[in-house]
Amino acid sequence: MTERTLIRETVGKVGELVHLSGWISIRRDHGKLVFFELRDRTGRVQLVVTPEKGDVIEAAKGIRPEYAVTVTGLVKERPAKKGSEPVPMSPDGVEIEVTALAVVGKPSEDLPIDVSQSDMHLQLETLLNHRTLALRQEKVAAIFRIYSEMLRAYDEAMRAEGFLEIKTPKILGASTEGGANFFRIKYFDRDAYLAQSPQFYKQAAMSAYERVFEVGSVFRAEPSYTTRHVTEYTGLDAEMGFIENVEEVMAMLEKTMHRMFRHIGEHCQAELMLFGATVPADVPIPRIPLADAFAILKEKYGKEIPDGEDIDSEGERLIGEYAKEQYGSDFVFLTQYPTAVRAFYSLPNAENPKISESYDLVFRGLEIASGAQRIHDPELLIRVIRERGLDPDTFKDYIEIFKYGAPPHGGWGLGSERIVQKLLGLASIKEAILYPRDVKRLTP
Amino acid sequence: MTERTLIRETVGKVGELVHLSGWISIRRDHGKLVFFELRDRTGRVQLVVTPEKGDVIEAAKGIRPEYAVTVTGLVKERPAKKGSEPVPMSPDGVEIEVTALAVVGKPSEDLPIDVSQSDMHLQLETLLNHRTLALRQEKVAAIFRIYSEMLRAYDEAMRAEGFLEIKTPKILGASTEGGANFFRIKYFDRDAYLAQSPQFYKQAAMSAYERVFEVGSVFRAEPSYTTRHVTEYTGLDAEMGFIENVEEVMAMLEKTMHRMFRHIGEHCQAELMLFGATVPADVPIPRIPLADAFAILKEKYGKEIPDGEDIDSEGERLIGEYAKEQYGSDFVFLTQYPTAVRAFYSLPNAENPKISESYDLVFRGLEIASGAQRIHDPELLIRVIRERGLDPDTFKDYIEIFKYGAPPHGGWGLGSERIVQKLLGLASIKEAILYPRDVKRLTP
Repeated sequence: MTERTLIRETVGKVGELVHLSGWISIRRDHGKLVFFELRDRTGRVQLVVTPEKGDVIEAAKGIRPEYAVTVTGLVKERPAKKGSEPVPMSPDGVEIEVTALAVVGKPSEDLPIDVSQSDMHLQLETLLNHRTLALRQEKVAAIFRIYSEMLRAYDEAMRAEGFLEIKTPKILGASTEGGANFFRIKYFDRDAYLAQSPQFYKQAAMSAYERVFEVGSVFRAEPSYTTRHVTEYTGLDAEMGFIENVEEVMAMLEKTMHRMFRHIGEHCQAELMLFGATVPADVPIPRIPLADAFAILKEKYGKEIPDGEDIDSEGERLIGEYAKEQYGSDFVFLTQYPTAVRAFYSLPNAENPKISESYDLVFRGLEIASGAQRIHDPELLIRVIRERGLDPDTFKDYIEIFKYGAPPHGGWGLGSERIVQKLLGLASIKEAILYPRDVKRLTP
Repeated sequence: MTERTLIRETVGKVGELVHLSGWISIRRDHGKLVFFELRDRTGRVQLVVTPEKGDVIEAAKGIRPEYAVTVTGLVKERPAKKGSEPVPMSPDGVEIEVTALAVVGKPSEDLPIDVSQSDMHLQLETLLNHRTLALRQEKVAAIFRIYSEMLRAYDEAMRAEGFLEIKTPKILGASTEGGANFFRIKYFDRDAYLAQSPQFYKQAAMSAYERVFEVGSVFRAEPSYTTRHVTEYTGLDAEMGFIENVEEVMAMLEKTMHRMFRHIGEHCQAELMLFGATVPADVPIPRIPLADAFAILKEKYGKEIPDGEDIDSEGERLIGEYAKEQYGSDFVFLTQYPTAVRAFYSLPNAENPKISESYDLVFRGLEIASGAQRIHDPELLIRVIRERGLDPDTFKDYIEIFKYGAPPHGGWGLGSERIVQKLLGLASIKEAILYPRDVKRLTP
C-alpha cells in the first residue's frame, strides 16, 4: 500500500518524494509546461508537469478539471507570485514537480456546472439539482465542514454538562404533537407516523437520566415554500430535570450556544472567511417577554401584532435587529408566550396560567430554538389536554411518564441547519442541508 | 437558584451542608430512624432522617421508592458496614444527615415493576411495556450509558481519521436498495420511501469530501421476529475515497472498533461490571474468505452450506467461536462474498467477477457490520444493474455521482445496537434500544 501524503502535510516535506491523491481543480497550459491545481480534503496545491517527463506529459494530456488522480512528485519551494491572492487552505510556498500521474476516476461527461469559480451564482434549484457536483466548489464545501463541526460542538457542549446521548424512535404509533403536519407510513398491515419531534421520548428518558440530548431526524409535513422550512431536518434536542424554573433551561441553552460558536470560531476560520462571516459575540443574551416585544415592535417599528397571538417572521427579524442595537447581541430570548399558542405540555405560569413558562431563541432574526418548562404533574397534564378538546386516552403512554415521580423539567428543540444558515447568511435553509426535502423535492 | 451538589461530589464535602436532588431508591425504617437511598445521574447515597428533625420525619412520612425529591443535609463520614457489598457508583464512606426534604415529583400509582432489584428477570415484552420506568433500574440504566459512550467513541474515532460528519435524507423518492423491505410514506400527493440505508448519499458526499460518516436512522420493513432484527435502528455509516483496495476499508474499521472499545472500557467500567462484561481484546482481527469459512464449518462443525450461498446466523456463530479459539479474537472478518449475494454496487473482483470485494464483520458470533469496495466506474455500474435485471433509469441520480470523477472507494454500515447487545450479552437487540420497533410494537 502506497503511503499517502495529505496536501496539508506537504509544506513540511520540501525535498521529499510524496504520493498525493485528489481532484484536479484547474488546468493551465504554458507552452510545454502543464500546471494543475490539485485538491484533497485538506487543501490545494500546484502540480507542475515539465516537458522532460515525456510519460507524465502524455498521461496529463486528457486530464481536465474534476478528474480524480493519484500523483507522485517532488515537493519544491515555490516562489511567491507578485500580486496574487493567497489561495485559502493552500500550503504556503510549495509546489509539486510531478514524476508520475494516474487517473483513478474519469469524468464521463462535460460538467454541468463550473465548480472552479469562487462563487457560482446559481439559482437554488440549479444548485440543488447538481448538489453532488456542487459540493466540490469551495464555498459550498465549506458549509458542510462548518455543519460537521457544529454537530461536534453540540455533542461536546451537552456531554460537558452531564447530558446523555439518546436515540428515540422516528416511527410512532400516533402523531405526537397533534396538528396536521405529520407524514403517514404504511406499517405492515396498519398506519404509523413519522416523528414530528422526539418530545415525548426525551421527556421519558429525562425521567430516568435527568439530562438527555438527541441529534436526530425530524419530519414535518409542511406544505410551505419558505426560505426557512423543509420537510426533514436534523433536530438538536435536549431535556433536563430537577430544575427550579425555565430560566435554568434558557441559561443552559445560552451556555451551549456560546460554546458551540466558540468551537466553530476556533475550528472553521478559513471556512467562515469565505463567507465573510463571524461568529456572534459572546455577550449575555437578553430575555424579552413577548408582550414587551410587541410593545417594542409597535413603538419602534410601527408593527402591530394583536395580544395573544404568536410573533410572525417579520416580527422576529425586527426584534433581532432591536437586540443587536440595544444589547449588542446576535441572539434574543422571547419569553412568556401565551399558553394558547404553545404546545399543550408547556407549563402554565402558576399565577397567570394564560402565560406559559416558554421561550423561543432568535438568532440574527430567525427563530432557531423553541423550549419550555414542561408539565410534570399528571393531573394537570390530563386537565390541560381536556381543556384543549383532546382526549387523554390518545396520550396514555405520554401521561404514564409522569405517574412514577417525574421531576420538574424543561428543554429545547434546536434546528441545526438554521444555525448554519444564519451564521453564514445563506438565503435559504436548503443551502445548509446536503440533500434537502420540500413539498416538491425528493431527489437527488 | 439553589446550588445543587451531585451525589458523586459529596465525598469531597464531608462536614458541609449540601443540596441534592434525585429519586428515592430504597426506604428503610429502623425504629424512629428513616434511611433512604437517594439516586441521581451520578450515583447513590444514603440519607438518614433522625427523630430530632420532627418536620423532616413528617415530610418523609409518605415517601416511597421513585419519589423525586430535593434534599438539604449534612455530609457525614459513614462507618463501613461489615460484610456488605460495595454499591457500584456509590460514593464510599459518606451519608447525608437530612435537614430538609421536599417532594418535587410524586408517583401517582403503585409501581408496576420493582426497579430496586439488582436483576428484574422480566420477560422482554414486560420490560418493553414498562420501558420508561425500567430505565431507572441499575442494569437497564447502564445499557444506555454505555450506548451513549459508544456513540461518542464512534464520533471521535471517525473525526480522528479525517471523516466529516454528514446527515442525509431519510425520505427518498425511490427505495434505494431495492428488495421489499422498505416502508412507503404518503408524501403530500405522491408516494415516498423511508431510507433503508444512507448508501447512495454517503457515496455522493464521499465524492466531494473523500471521507464521511453518518450516525442516523435506518428503516427496514423486516417482518421477522428474531433477537437481531428491528424495523428501525441507528446506523453507524462511513465511506472513504482514494483507496487501493477493500483491505484499506477493513483496516480502518478494525482500527475504529478497537478505538471504540478502548473508549468504552475506559469510561464504562462500573456499567460493564454489572453485566460481568469485558471489552474485546485488542488483537488483530482475522480475515477469512467465505469459501474457507464454509470449509471450516464443514470440517470442524459438520455444517454444510452450499457454495454461492450466504452464511446463515448459525454459521456466523460457529465461525465466531472458531476465531476466538484459533486467533483469540472476538471479531472475524468474512471476506470475498459471492457477488450474487451482495448489493449490486459491490465491486466484483477484477480476475474473478463472481467474487466481490466485500466483507462482513462478525462480533462474538453476530454480524455487526457489512461493507465493500464499491463500483466507481459508471459504465460498469450500468452493466451490473442491467445484469441484475434492473433498469438503470431507476438509478439515474445514483449513477450520476460517478460521472464527475469519483475515486475508488468503500465503506461500511455498522449496527450500533448490535455492538452493545453483544458486548453485554443481551438476549435481544431490543434490550439495547430505548424504544424498539418491530412488526407488532409501535408503543410506547
